Amino acid sequence: MATGKINVSVENIFPLIKKFLYSDHEIFLRELISNATDATLKLKHLTSIGEAKVEYGNPIIEVKVDKDQKRIHIIDQGIGMSEEEVKKYINEVAFSGAEEFLDKYKDAGKEAGIIGHFGLGFYSAFMVAEKVEIITKSFKDEPAVHWICDGSPEFTLESADKKDRGTEIILHVAEDSTEFLEEAKIRQLLVKYNKFMPIPIKFGTKKETLPKPEGAKEDEPAPTKEVDNIINNPEPAWTKQPTDLKDEDYKSFYRELYPMQFEEPLFHIHLNVDYPFNLTGILYFPKLSNDLNIQKDRIQLYQNQVFVTDNVEGIVPEFLTMLRGVIDSPDIPLNVSRSYLQADGAVKKISSYITRKVADKLSSLFKNNREDFEQKWNDIKVVIEYGMLTEEKFFEKAEKFALFPTVEGFFHTFEELETKIKDTQTDKDGTMVVLYASDKEAQHSYIEAAKTKGYEVLLMDSPIVPHLLQKLEISKEKVSFVRVDADHIDNLIKKEDTTISKLSDEEKDQLKASLESAIADKGYTIQLEAMDSTASPFIITEPEFMRRMKEMQRTGGGGMFGMGNMPDMYNLIVNTNHELVGEILNTKTDKKRERLINQSLDLARLSKGLLKGEELTKFIARSYEMIK
Amino acid sequence: MATGKINVSVENIFPLIKKFLYSDHEIFLRELISNATDATLKLKHLTSIGEAKVEYGNPIIEVKVDKDQKRIHIIDQGIGMSEEEVKKYINEVAFSGAEEFLDKYKDAGKEAGIIGHFGLGFYSAFMVAEKVEIITKSFKDEPAVHWICDGSPEFTLESADKKDRGTEIILHVAEDSTEFLEEAKIRQLLVKYNKFMPIPIKFGTKKETLPKPEGAKEDEPAPTKEVDNIINNPEPAWTKQPTDLKDEDYKSFYRELYPMQFEEPLFHIHLNVDYPFNLTGILYFPKLSNDLNIQKDRIQLYQNQVFVTDNVEGIVPEFLTMLRGVIDSPDIPLNVSRSYLQADGAVKKISSYITRKVADKLSSLFKNNREDFEQKWNDIKVVIEYGMLTEEKFFEKAEKFALFPTVEGFFHTFEELETKIKDTQTDKDGTMVVLYASDKEAQHSYIEAAKTKGYEVLLMDSPIVPHLLQKLEISKEKVSFVRVDADHIDNLIKKEDTTISKLSDEEKDQLKASLESAIADKGYTIQLEAMDSTASPFIITEPEFMRRMKEMQRTGGGGMFGMGNMPDMYNLIVNTNHELVGEILNTKTDKKRERLINQSLDLARLSKGLLKGEELTKFIARSYEMIK
Repeated sequence: MATGKINVSVENIFPLIKKFLYSDHEIFLRELISNATDATLKLKHLTSIGEAKVEYGNPIIEVKVDKDQKRIHIIDQGIGMSEEEVKKYINEVAFSGAEEFLDKYKDAGKEAGIIGHFGLGFYSAFMVAEKVEIITKSFKDEPAVHWICDGSPEFTLESADKKDRGTEIILHVAEDSTEFLEEAKIRQLLVKYNKFMPIPIKFGTKKETLPKPEGAKEDEPAPTKEVDNIINNPEPAWTKQPTDLKDEDYKSFYRELYPMQFEEPLFHIHLNVDYPFNLTGILYFPKLSNDLNIQKDRIQLYQNQVFVTDNVEGIVPEFLTMLRGVIDSPDIPLNVSRSYLQADGAVKKISSYITRKVADKLSSLFKNNREDFEQKWNDIKVVIEYGMLTEEKFFEKAEKFALFPTVEGFFHTFEELETKIKDTQTDKDGTMVVLYASDKEAQHSYIEAAKTKGYEVLLMDSPIVPHLLQKLEISKEKVSFVRVDADHIDNLIKKEDTTISKLSDEEKDQLKASLESAIADKGYTIQLEAMDSTASPFIITEPEFMRRMKEMQRTGGGGMFGMGNMPDMYNLIVNTNHELVGEILNTKTDKKRERLINQSLDLARLSKGLLKGEELTKFIARSYEMIK
Repeated sequence: MATGKINVSVENIFPLIKKFLYSDHEIFLRELISNATDATLKLKHLTSIGEAKVEYGNPIIEVKVDKDQKRIHIIDQGIGMSEEEVKKYINEVAFSGAEEFLDKYKDAGKEAGIIGHFGLGFYSAFMVAEKVEIITKSFKDEPAVHWICDGSPEFTLESADKKDRGTEIILHVAEDSTEFLEEAKIRQLLVKYNKFMPIPIKFGTKKETLPKPEGAKEDEPAPTKEVDNIINNPEPAWTKQPTDLKDEDYKSFYRELYPMQFEEPLFHIHLNVDYPFNLTGILYFPKLSNDLNIQKDRIQLYQNQVFVTDNVEGIVPEFLTMLRGVIDSPDIPLNVSRSYLQADGAVKKISSYITRKVADKLSSLFKNNREDFEQKWNDIKVVIEYGMLTEEKFFEKAEKFALFPTVEGFFHTFEELETKIKDTQTDKDGTMVVLYASDKEAQHSYIEAAKTKGYEVLLMDSPIVPHLLQKLEISKEKVSFVRVDADHIDNLIKKEDTTISKLSDEEKDQLKASLESAIADKGYTIQLEAMDSTASPFIITEPEFMRRMKEMQRTGGGGMFGMGNMPDMYNLIVNTNHELVGEILNTKTDKKRERLINQSLDLARLSKGLLKGEELTKFIARSYEMIK
């Protein structure tokens, strides 16, 4: 038996890095600026604890593009490196400088805000550069060094005459990466990845207008001066304490995040937790439409103020991906698949923390300013309803503040609704029947019929309503939701008392025969009902169960298999107590009776939105004739 | 000046692989089976050229899960490794055995079908295993060896008593990866990644029913025997020559790819190209709905029969991501970002090759069986129209076969349409006006009015129609598309001849005043027009330009900024030559005249689908009164 050590042959490590390590070449800039930030924050920490006997000052990071020479420079005023450190940190790949530093200053590391998650970051430079130079001078009193490497493992190392502390990285951009020599491209990358990094980043200069000197002439232009153009905001709102921020600060940070967004957010949630994971951030509720799909991917994920991605799928529960804002956490694993993320314990905890914070915020908004909460309901309901449907924990909390709006614009919690309608809307079997409409306009006549009876009608118009109602019916006892056009009003909530029919059984048989012969081919199930004489003579209804199952199928999942494609089913209710129905019965000539029946049926179909196309055109032509 | 070599410290390579190399732990199985396949194909090649003096036979790969011992075994009957080879290929990370082999047998490599793209694949085993064993015996007459490594760089190597040629990998599954000890999980992974790999993969056994022996009793059960359960189809349709496949073979491969899909594909396109890139595959046109979003991600990408992903964004032009099927190409870079893919030269060529093949197939279907093509049009139009909109090259080809269906169900190419309508539908300025409807039912009365004039009306109902028409108008001269309800029919296509109004100018003024006083608050722009006396008395129209711009805004992009949210604008056209309008003019009592105007307006609104809610309920109640 032999033992040995697996040997990694060095010739192969660069192609490996190029090919596998980073999926996107553009992140080289993020990596190098992270390193520069790291080096600066290290110096800050060392001076603060007295280990570095130098002035920290106001260091910045500078990025310069030299298109003629095909070079990009990244210059920091941080800790720098001695020759020994270059050998250790640069010449030994996969030996993370930040990690070793963290080990040494473990407890201090966190508050010093050291990034250090991108140990191999430096080598990403070779994704875009054919040659890389490092000119660096340590904060310690040691000579500056100059390191040059052309991407093969051979490097040269010599002394340099750099006087100032810090590190300059020079990338000699390769032929296939010249896009990165465009100022606009670099600016775009800086804004994308480094907009909120903690050390100021200078990219070029800009003109700043100075106040006019006293006594200057009217038409004299105000003097200007060239100042550093700082790309980033080193202290974004989410890094501050909530107590230090006013409402206006949150709004102005929202504008910073979404400069193209003109509408203000409805409210925000400041996330801030240290244990058992580290997470800060601000989430905003924007106005949401009913379209669930188009509004995702608006939350940005950062790690220690470095932008990572705007796809937070798997980190934030799905229903909250419709929100906007920022999450910053070093505890979310990067470069892993979404399915892995969802199984990760830390990520699960983060996800449920966010859910809880959102529920708590909604709950406090509801309690502290109900009126305001009601006004915002229609803009936020889709998130809350979707959350109730998909996250059990959220459902439990949301039951207290989820609102059920009526068609008249009142808002009830379910508990309030129950108190209000329990007496009037409980049927003879003891089930409380909640009536709802999905469209105030299209279901107007049915809503009116329910209102005539003194019933409340809810307006439930989100796309996921059928699923939500299904869930509510299961979680509550003896509660049933029925859409107002599912049956005629006396059947929707069946009571003991029955209206007596004006027609005898014989007359009913005769009526039914007339109806069937006139409209047999239209496919309606005819139902004679003794209703109020003031109710409509003809009513078309669509039974709740079938309709809901079909809607559930159509909106993705649930319902019963294959039902989404079944034809719609309608009943025709004929009110035997209506004057017009009496007239139909008493009309002797077949043709006239049929005309009456058909015109009545057309009006009932019109009321349910079913009269269309040629039939509608004919109905209209007939009606023009009649009004002449 | 000093020079040196960058040194990679070995202690750090395993965490690196674990953390960065693979985004998804589950692919360890794909990698190991790829290696096993590789080893088997190498042997096949060596025996075929006479370098290996052994019987190739019918080798299989076996996967076994031992839940009690927490082990997964992957066993092949391939080329095997000698001690020297283990040292070379396993102990030297990043030294790709396949690559070296390819170098040696460069020309032969391709037809031998060597996978070899996963050089570092073996080490992915450590993502799920705390210890890995290799027991291997080379096809050469050398002793078997046994390699054991626990994930640290230390390994042991000893001789083994394995008798058969080939390699067995034993994974000792780590505590955090026990999900991979579930048979169902492994089966799922095998089906996902290895379903079409070229060497048979055995996973367990299954019972196969044998024919009953002669003379067996009626109630005697047929005998069964245990046979290997082979997971994969080693020769999927796309690896064969199109000439060797019948239509039924393509259909049955579709069912293999989408076992849950009950509908048959409409037609297929066999992709097969060697130069300048290597690509095979079969694309299918399924029946497509008008919803552009829900039907993506159905094309699977393979590399040498190994499943890679079902997200082909960036590889296939966007409009073709609605198709289904398989693409297999070793020339598509993996593990790179989508934006990188889109910039990659080879990928661009692949994308335009696929576009061309699809266009050619459509063109030949159109030419060879026009009737069939027309029948399928509604199921495929969304892809073609979207392609015309987004890919200029496709637009040029599609012009020859893109169909414009009429509301009556006839299908014309644009050229045919032009021949048909040029004379009748060219207006006085020489512009050919193409009339279209977006909804046969909702626009029925307007379509009828156009048909009365002898005009053709197209039915254009895809969601991207406004964008497509915009593009067609730009690419053609003196052609304009107008929806039938954009104006009254005499104005849609303006001719020289004008109908004379029955009303004098004075009467017109008087009529206009009456109309304005009766319906001033309804917001319509009133337009008196002398039309045919048989045309409708009142017509509501919606000007084309505004409506189209708004639709374009709503369906993502184009149109004019901010127009998506503007209110709808309607005109009310009053036909001064209609009898009813004369009656309105001659009605002396204000109340009666207003009632006539309002009932007429309601009917016009009904015809345009604008009478809703309370107004509709009132209209219906009024109408019931009138028919009594």
